[in-house]
Amino acid sequence: MLGSTHGTLTTDSRRARVIACGEEPGPAVHGRPAQADDLDVSGRPLYADVPDLDRFFRPGSVAVVGASDAEGRPNTGVTRQLVSWAERVGARLHPVHPTRASVFGLPCAASVADLPEQVDLAVLLVADPLPVIEQLAETKVKFAVVFASGFAETGEQGAAAQERLAAAVERSGIRLLGPNTNLNAFERFRGDLTGPAIALITQSGHQGRPVFALQELGVRLSHWAPTGNEADLETADFLSYFAERPEVGAIACYVEGLKDGRSFLLAADRAARRGVPVVAVKVGRTEAGARTAASHTGKLTGADDVVDAAMRQYGVIRVDGLDELQDTATLLARARPPRASGVVIYSISGGTGAHAADLATAAGLDLPALSSAKQAELHQWIPAYLNVANPVDNGGHPVGDERGRKIIDAILDDPAVGVLICPVTGPFPPLSDRLVQDLVDAAERTDKLVCVVWGSPVGTEPAYREVLLGSSRVVTFRTLANCISAVRAHLEHHRFVTGYRSPFDQAPRTLSPSFRKAQLLMRPGQQLSEHAAKQLLRAYGIRVPREQLVTSAAAAVRAAGLVGYPVVMKASGAQIAHKTELGLVKIGLTSASQVRDAYRELTDIARYEGVALDGVLVCQMVERGVETVVGVTHDDLFGPTVTVGLGGVLVEVLRDAAVRVPPFGEDQARDMLAELRGRALLDGVRGRPPADVDALVEVVLRVQRMALELGDDLAELDINPLVVLPRGQGAVALDALAVCR
Amino acid sequence: MLGSTHGTLTTDSRRARVIACGEEPGPAVHGRPAQADDLDVSGRPLYADVPDLDRFFRPGSVAVVGASDAEGRPNTGVTRQLVSWAERVGARLHPVHPTRASVFGLPCAASVADLPEQVDLAVLLVADPLPVIEQLAETKVKFAVVFASGFAETGEQGAAAQERLAAAVERSGIRLLGPNTNLNAFERFRGDLTGPAIALITQSGHQGRPVFALQELGVRLSHWAPTGNEADLETADFLSYFAERPEVGAIACYVEGLKDGRSFLLAADRAARRGVPVVAVKVGRTEAGARTAASHTGKLTGADDVVDAAMRQYGVIRVDGLDELQDTATLLARARPPRASGVVIYSISGGTGAHAADLATAAGLDLPALSSAKQAELHQWIPAYLNVANPVDNGGHPVGDERGRKIIDAILDDPAVGVLICPVTGPFPPLSDRLVQDLVDAAERTDKLVCVVWGSPVGTEPAYREVLLGSSRVVTFRTLANCISAVRAHLEHHRFVTGYRSPFDQAPRTLSPSFRKAQLLMRPGQQLSEHAAKQLLRAYGIRVPREQLVTSAAAAVRAAGLVGYPVVMKASGAQIAHKTELGLVKIGLTSASQVRDAYRELTDIARYEGVALDGVLVCQMVERGVETVVGVTHDDLFGPTVTVGLGGVLVEVLRDAAVRVPPFGEDQARDMLAELRGRALLDGVRGRPPADVDALVEVVLRVQRMALELGDDLAELDINPLVVLPRGQGAVALDALAVCR
Repeated sequence: MLGSTHGTLTTDSRRARVIACGEEPGPAVHGRPAQADDLDVSGRPLYADVPDLDRFFRPGSVAVVGASDAEGRPNTGVTRQLVSWAERVGARLHPVHPTRASVFGLPCAASVADLPEQVDLAVLLVADPLPVIEQLAETKVKFAVVFASGFAETGEQGAAAQERLAAAVERSGIRLLGPNTNLNAFERFRGDLTGPAIALITQSGHQGRPVFALQELGVRLSHWAPTGNEADLETADFLSYFAERPEVGAIACYVEGLKDGRSFLLAADRAARRGVPVVAVKVGRTEAGARTAASHTGKLTGADDVVDAAMRQYGVIRVDGLDELQDTATLLARARPPRASGVVIYSISGGTGAHAADLATAAGLDLPALSSAKQAELHQWIPAYLNVANPVDNGGHPVGDERGRKIIDAILDDPAVGVLICPVTGPFPPLSDRLVQDLVDAAERTDKLVCVVWGSPVGTEPAYREVLLGSSRVVTFRTLANCISAVRAHLEHHRFVTGYRSPFDQAPRTLSPSFRKAQLLMRPGQQLSEHAAKQLLRAYGIRVPREQLVTSAAAAVRAAGLVGYPVVMKASGAQIAHKTELGLVKIGLTSASQVRDAYRELTDIARYEGVALDGVLVCQMVERGVETVVGVTHDDLFGPTVTVGLGGVLVEVLRDAAVRVPPFGEDQARDMLAELRGRALLDGVRGRPPADVDALVEVVLRVQRMALELGDDLAELDINPLVVLPRGQGAVALDALAVCR
Repeated sequence: MLGSTHGTLTTDSRRARVIACGEEPGPAVHGRPAQADDLDVSGRPLYADVPDLDRFFRPGSVAVVGASDAEGRPNTGVTRQLVSWAERVGARLHPVHPTRASVFGLPCAASVADLPEQVDLAVLLVADPLPVIEQLAETKVKFAVVFASGFAETGEQGAAAQERLAAAVERSGIRLLGPNTNLNAFERFRGDLTGPAIALITQSGHQGRPVFALQELGVRLSHWAPTGNEADLETADFLSYFAERPEVGAIACYVEGLKDGRSFLLAADRAARRGVPVVAVKVGRTEAGARTAASHTGKLTGADDVVDAAMRQYGVIRVDGLDELQDTATLLARARPPRASGVVIYSISGGTGAHAADLATAAGLDLPALSSAKQAELHQWIPAYLNVANPVDNGGHPVGDERGRKIIDAILDDPAVGVLICPVTGPFPPLSDRLVQDLVDAAERTDKLVCVVWGSPVGTEPAYREVLLGSSRVVTFRTLANCISAVRAHLEHHRFVTGYRSPFDQAPRTLSPSFRKAQLLMRPGQQLSEHAAKQLLRAYGIRVPREQLVTSAAAAVRAAGLVGYPVVMKASGAQIAHKTELGLVKIGLTSASQVRDAYRELTDIARYEGVALDGVLVCQMVERGVETVVGVTHDDLFGPTVTVGLGGVLVEVLRDAAVRVPPFGEDQARDMLAELRGRALLDGVRGRPPADVDALVEVVLRVQRMALELGDDLAELDINPLVVLPRGQGAVALDALAVCR
């Protein structure tokens, strides 16, 4: 029932699933939609059920265990709210208390065994929920909520108590919300608002409050799931449930830590397939923040760059502030799929338009110049000396009469325009009141997105409170920055879901023949020698230089003849790192005598430095190309991750690298390269030829395959450098470090 | 009177000012405070007067030329506002109109010649202000305001009209605001607000409106200068005037373009000396934005990275959004100099604290852990299981009674704490009302900074509207992001002004002996050969490799002997760029025969490529170091600028460079290096020794000196690479490109 924490399979169990499929594994493309019991080759699930939470949010009957109506008791306020919530949603409420006869006039059961009917939901207000869960197991209750705190958020002892609770819940078949949660799911939601709603998931009651309060600004909210410690039901469960609800236009999340990385991604994948946008604040930009958050909820926060990448892979829109969460979720809930990516800035002041256009362009929005025909049309109503190319400056006066409406309609009618942004910097009622009314009216007539930035810091103006907030179509912002970032998120999300193919459908499910070769090379608990690490790469079809491991000067000379001059020679041993710094690499050797000298020198240095050698590598010298690094590391939250970066100073000094969580497809591997700040190097700079990007992408995908198949047995892999040759010539791993677990 | 656009001096006039001061020019340190007629060595002013604008903002008498009280005339509304403004500020108002006897009951003069008294200020509501300015010149009026538009903002013809107006103003001795301005300076300011005020300067009436509206939220505003087209009075004039006003706590600017870069910097310098913070929105992050802004005001926008650097050099806090402008200016106006840089996050929820601490730390704020003694003190009132190290989580309940006040006082009493930030995510009146009242009360008792983030998007709550906005000490924000960036700006501004030494006091006023040598090398309109460009560097004491220019293979061998093996050989000629790509550089030559071969090969390639040579350079081969680039370019707004970057891929691919506007001192040169993303390279990475940063700083300062002395004659200088050797060993310019104008 818990079903969300999955270890990787052991090597033995994986070995059993090797299938014959040709010598070289291709990229991880399968293409069959994942099903209930599918696992990927690393043993992680490719599918998660959507829990049916209908009866959680809309139960027919509810038991409140520990109900009270005694003045001054903490449970009294909670019970009162539950009673009034049950009335609103039409649920029968049964108080449970060992000694009271009735609570708030409702007859009280002495224990859950004495309940008059089978209930859908039991709310546990008791300090120790464990025995009650065990009793509830008998009664076939579907859902339980535990408010009590003092579990994983308090340290080791609490974590142990939470594990006992989770085990009892799993045995019982009940789905549990909590512990350490609250009444948020049972708040009073406004029923009079229309349009697509925001569904809210938070790990802190306080932090969800501002999103909930949006209802006071006319934004519809459908659900609030306060997940607490997530002993059973977790953020992912609500995410996938909400993604399937027709009334939900966007899902807003406040996440401090995740119970399980994979289940979150499977839920995000479900939302992406359905085109439902997910906007999330995830605490943990800094280590200090991650630590504080962990101590607050007892969950894993994961490395922030990995969290960031994982969210992006599945289209989750990450924001930092609660104000951004509100504004972005509101826009995404209301906006229909954009018909064009063009954004027009429309304002009553040239200064306002210039400023907004500057910031919008800087943020990457596309502000197309309107066609000259459209400009001529606008100039029917706007004086000729004003700029109407985009931004459109109307000079003020036209908004005071019927021209205002015509201008807005003409802009929205342009096929190049998907979004209109109108910043109203200061309220000037003779103009701005009519302007915002025209915008509200126009938004009713169009399926294009109309955004208003109400710039007045006062916010009590009727044009804002009554007209703008009274519209369920216009999206109103208080800052230009939030408007721009929400519009950008909307356009990017649309592009993302339009091209979305689930990586889970394409993930490898069976071991490749490479795995058989690879497992012979693995040395548990050890770092492999460079030679062995390169053989591991070869097993997965990654090119390495021609090389031979030799143990005498004479053998070195013979090897050089076979490998072909000029050669590189390197000391080889399991514990050698920083070979170059130690002088254990000799390059550009062109003759037998140089090879002999080099052999002597390398072994002398190794002896002097006390480094154990398994020999000396005589390697083919590879032509110049772009140096990159490709690697595998493990993330606490998401398991193995694949990294690619640009070599040398870029990765060493600037950490110019991109990371992805498997499974991912070729598109994401290409996106990784696009993320690199120094990506122009791959295109060729200062007359150098473009690099073989296809080959680099192929290596990234093969490394992903290796990471999935070797799973936890491969603690770390670092190909540094992988030299990417000019286009059509491939990529060669010149050195590699592999650590087995 | 205009006095703000200064060309550079000619070479001849600069030559006359050469003084003998030793062979090598030191860094540009003089240390004498600048005076009224001081010019730096480039001919730019080192001092600007503060215009006395008292009688502009508080005139004794005002003439309104073109006054009207006829229904339906545009000037009627304006006249009405001026009449009521004059009443408020106690000025006698004299309408001027050729045909009316009276306007709004005030006797009308037929022309400015008929005014009953000499007026301080004439407001011109006429379409063609030029003849009126000429009439006013006779009457010794101090100030005029011209509302009329149709000048530089409309294109060439308008610009010419504006030049005629400016010339008339200069002849007249009148100081003019406008044209293309408005009534903003004469708005109704709230007189009941206390504490340091914001003074506002804007180039657009609309864009200033939100800052003006802050008064409705209890923030005091003292002035508003809508500078319009700045034919005479410009942003800089108001900036320096406001910096001297005792009631002004911070200056907020909205700038689309500047009339003159230097006058802006001189005004910013005045504010920096007086410790008055200046916060500015400057349009022009993108080229599109800059273009639109220019078409709106007809001013120069400058290259954005140069604007950014210039502002930072003089402590101007640049922000992007009008909301940030409001929030940052409000905080800076109210905050007293911080007694410590430590920031404490205090909240009633662990989640809120963790989130805020995460974002604050990510933004670079210092959140020190409170001492164990302080934590023990807090735990008197806060349950032991809650985190009080920082963030301080009070769990909620303590704020409901007298503990709340004690906790706040105890935090503010900590000598490590300079700022307290309290995010109130959602209003929960039983707790939050008392919490904010305690914060407001505590802020009255302390000189430390107390900030509240009112997280509710609703904003109609009494605790916000009445309690928080009723305080002139607490600074209240609506978003955490703006709070964090304003607090950071405050702490950084304090550090900046504390260590501030005006670069204008240290700027070189006289030509160095280097200039005499340099001018002999200059070739107007030409690009210098590498050899000549290096001699230019030598003239300014910048080290170049030992080298000789030779024109035969035999001479090359002799030169190599003198220079010392190994040598580098390069083709030298005026038009050669990208020598390396063309194969016109040979490195590591160790023998006479190699030198002879190289000479032949270089001349062959040059002949084949059709490149004219003035010879071949035989150069000392320089040891390995960190490759950097140092250069000079010209900015439209600020004149010569100095750039330093890290060489190779960092500057070529990532444009990792920092720029400064002269004059600047050693501290700014060091700050340039700190700005570089790859700065770790200078510290030494992977076992390399730290680079001679002092030598690099010295080169930057010498290049600045050259840029100032050669002025416009040096169109461009590019030292690439400048190799910075290990610490103590200096820096060597291996190649240089110089273009003369």
